[in-house]
Amino acid sequence: MINVGIIGFGTVGTGTAKILLNNRDIIRERTGIDVNLRRIADLDIKRDRGIRLARGVLTTDANAVINDPEIDVIVELIGGTTIAKEVVLKALKAGKHVVTANKALLATYGREIFRTAAANRVQVGFEASVGGGIPIIKVVREGLVANRIRAIYGIVNGTTNYILTKMTDEKAEFGEVLKEAQKLGYAEADPTYDVEGIDSAHKLAILATLAYGAPYSIRDVHVEGITSITPMDIEFARELGYKLKLLAIAKAGGGGIELRVHPTMVPEDNLISKVDGVYNAVYVEGDAVGSTLYYGRGAGDMPTGSAVVSDIVDIALAVAGCAPARPSLATTGRKALMKMDDVVSMYYFRFAALDRPGVLSKISGILGSRNISIISVIQKGRHSGKAVPLVVLTHLARERDVAAALREINRLSVVAGKTVCIRVEGRDAD
Amino acid sequence: MINVGIIGFGTVGTGTAKILLNNRDIIRERTGIDVNLRRIADLDIKRDRGIRLARGVLTTDANAVINDPEIDVIVELIGGTTIAKEVVLKALKAGKHVVTANKALLATYGREIFRTAAANRVQVGFEASVGGGIPIIKVVREGLVANRIRAIYGIVNGTTNYILTKMTDEKAEFGEVLKEAQKLGYAEADPTYDVEGIDSAHKLAILATLAYGAPYSIRDVHVEGITSITPMDIEFARELGYKLKLLAIAKAGGGGIELRVHPTMVPEDNLISKVDGVYNAVYVEGDAVGSTLYYGRGAGDMPTGSAVVSDIVDIALAVAGCAPARPSLATTGRKALMKMDDVVSMYYFRFAALDRPGVLSKISGILGSRNISIISVIQKGRHSGKAVPLVVLTHLARERDVAAALREINRLSVVAGKTVCIRVEGRDAD
Repeated sequence: MINVGIIGFGTVGTGTAKILLNNRDIIRERTGIDVNLRRIADLDIKRDRGIRLARGVLTTDANAVINDPEIDVIVELIGGTTIAKEVVLKALKAGKHVVTANKALLATYGREIFRTAAANRVQVGFEASVGGGIPIIKVVREGLVANRIRAIYGIVNGTTNYILTKMTDEKAEFGEVLKEAQKLGYAEADPTYDVEGIDSAHKLAILATLAYGAPYSIRDVHVEGITSITPMDIEFARELGYKLKLLAIAKAGGGGIELRVHPTMVPEDNLISKVDGVYNAVYVEGDAVGSTLYYGRGAGDMPTGSAVVSDIVDIALAVAGCAPARPSLATTGRKALMKMDDVVSMYYFRFAALDRPGVLSKISGILGSRNISIISVIQKGRHSGKAVPLVVLTHLARERDVAAALREINRLSVVAGKTVCIRVEGRDAD
Repeated sequence: MINVGIIGFGTVGTGTAKILLNNRDIIRERTGIDVNLRRIADLDIKRDRGIRLARGVLTTDANAVINDPEIDVIVELIGGTTIAKEVVLKALKAGKHVVTANKALLATYGREIFRTAAANRVQVGFEASVGGGIPIIKVVREGLVANRIRAIYGIVNGTTNYILTKMTDEKAEFGEVLKEAQKLGYAEADPTYDVEGIDSAHKLAILATLAYGAPYSIRDVHVEGITSITPMDIEFARELGYKLKLLAIAKAGGGGIELRVHPTMVPEDNLISKVDGVYNAVYVEGDAVGSTLYYGRGAGDMPTGSAVVSDIVDIALAVAGCAPARPSLATTGRKALMKMDDVVSMYYFRFAALDRPGVLSKISGILGSRNISIISVIQKGRHSGKAVPLVVLTHLARERDVAAALREINRLSVVAGKTVCIRVEGRDAD
């Protein structure tokens, strides 16, 4: 059992608390670690956040959380670099492990914080500081540990990507879209950090420090924001075969490391070009692994909370012993398997239909009788009396019904061969 | 220092050995772990693999490696489920940690192997068993540990994705493309495991076991291969707005877990549709994190070796102590920063050029004098004597030269305002 105290009960704090309460069981099953949310400190403890907490969990006194001898891990979710720094250093000196999502704090005071942690033999988790729910920190420092990192390219700020996506789709001006984004809560009242590229630069400094093992800070990053981007340039980019994105770029070359954040034109067929709205994606190129890409929601209560909680679990496992009990293939759970017959999917059928009147009506009649409804039909070619392909795309249908319908259809005298059947995923499910 | 023995010196064995030798320094800098490649066993120790090994490293006797008391970690890269199983169990019983890329072995005998490991208090690493160099195992079991996994969709077999991509691009028949893939070494002489979907099913069983905590095996997976796919169906799919991919799918629903591998039509605008050739991609949807995607090379000596070595490092860190010395932000390296002036990039310029004869020649002359060469030019509209946008896309050029050229151009009397300058990435670099 590990006891957790959260300081800062805003968006991410609320997401983290929800996950700790709702998924406590599955985390325990997977790792043997029981994560107990013991205290939450915030100046505002009245507002309803849609969470039921036990009595005594909430407090307005951050020190009461930091100094609680039962608490093992302090989660700092205040933001900013003043009070947050004080809280983090105080917690580390009190012998608590710290988990934080605060990229500005880490990119500015990272060395001091990690040295204090080392001196007090505690750990600092910061998965949530870059890429929201995407485990990009873990990927760079653990998954790709065997690689010399050649380059990192990332869309690491959801606000600017949302704005650029809207400007592209609606040929709208920056100012207009920014106002709309502020209304929807995708941009802050003071959007400077995001739209001027500062937030992206903080995140790039963190990634570069991990990738290249030297203390890169925001002062090492060439930064340009998106405020002067116009729909005209986006349109010209499109004509040339490019999309406009705010990229954070680190590249290792002969002359040293390039670190830059600026609006960038990316070839339309590159995966990064397809990353739209508030999504983030980071492309990492290693000398052994080659090109890899990591994609997901870069912000938000639950995605960022997912990263915070993964740090808590990592720390708990490290504290628990030398051989962390990661989920392995020697599972103890019971299998709960759905029968293939019960699976629901969209379907593509290609019938070898004889070109005679009434064939489509017969086939669609059988499909209808089995609750299989049609999205579209393609009928090609004319060979009176001969077989022509008749293609049908369906809405969601049950495998069992599909099998029965096809058996019936394949027996029709107007069907000249076995029907091709391919499942379709995505449009209904996404 | 950790001593490693490799058993099986084929493609992945060679890649692993190369990484251990070439990147030993950077791994030590990052983690403090010195990984020493002590022995390699293979029946063929004569063939030149382009690697210089110290005398005495190579042996034909697997037992000499397994029983070497100095060796901490055995890397099994034989493949298959007979000798490989014997080697792995023998190594575990000898108290060695094991790292393997063998999905067939794990999907078939996973429980026995992990129980033997637990009984002997050693670990089994298997990052390389799914997704080649993509750290997807680490993502599912560690990065997303806080999530209930709603669904996993993946292209996890490069051979079939290569074949389907070629069939799509060249409207070619399956048999034809298979033969070509065999010639190029992308498909085995006996391609059954790949093209019938068995390899994908093994990998899905491993992912599902980790995601859902119960011992799913290949027998639980509904499997269909790609052998009966025709160019006609791929073409109809395109008309309907879909791409055809071999997907491995796990979905958690009310009725249990669906596990299936089959050709699947995926909407063209979905990221998975853009994953072509031998690349793999796995989409993981968690209740907190939402949709995430992981993309990279799914096979090959170096990518798979990257995953093998990350497992070795993970084991070494776990063995070394309770607080693994992961790379942190308190780095000790020296910064080597490239000056922005020296950065090389492609560029997009938009000049506000007066619509007069000779303007393009003046501008391109200045660009040329600074070694900036032009890929394309777009000139739009006609407003005699007024400013019209003149767009130029350049080849790679140096930031310093670009700045100087733009200063000169902005002073021209035929240029009516400051030039817009946006960097372009990707086409030259990728």
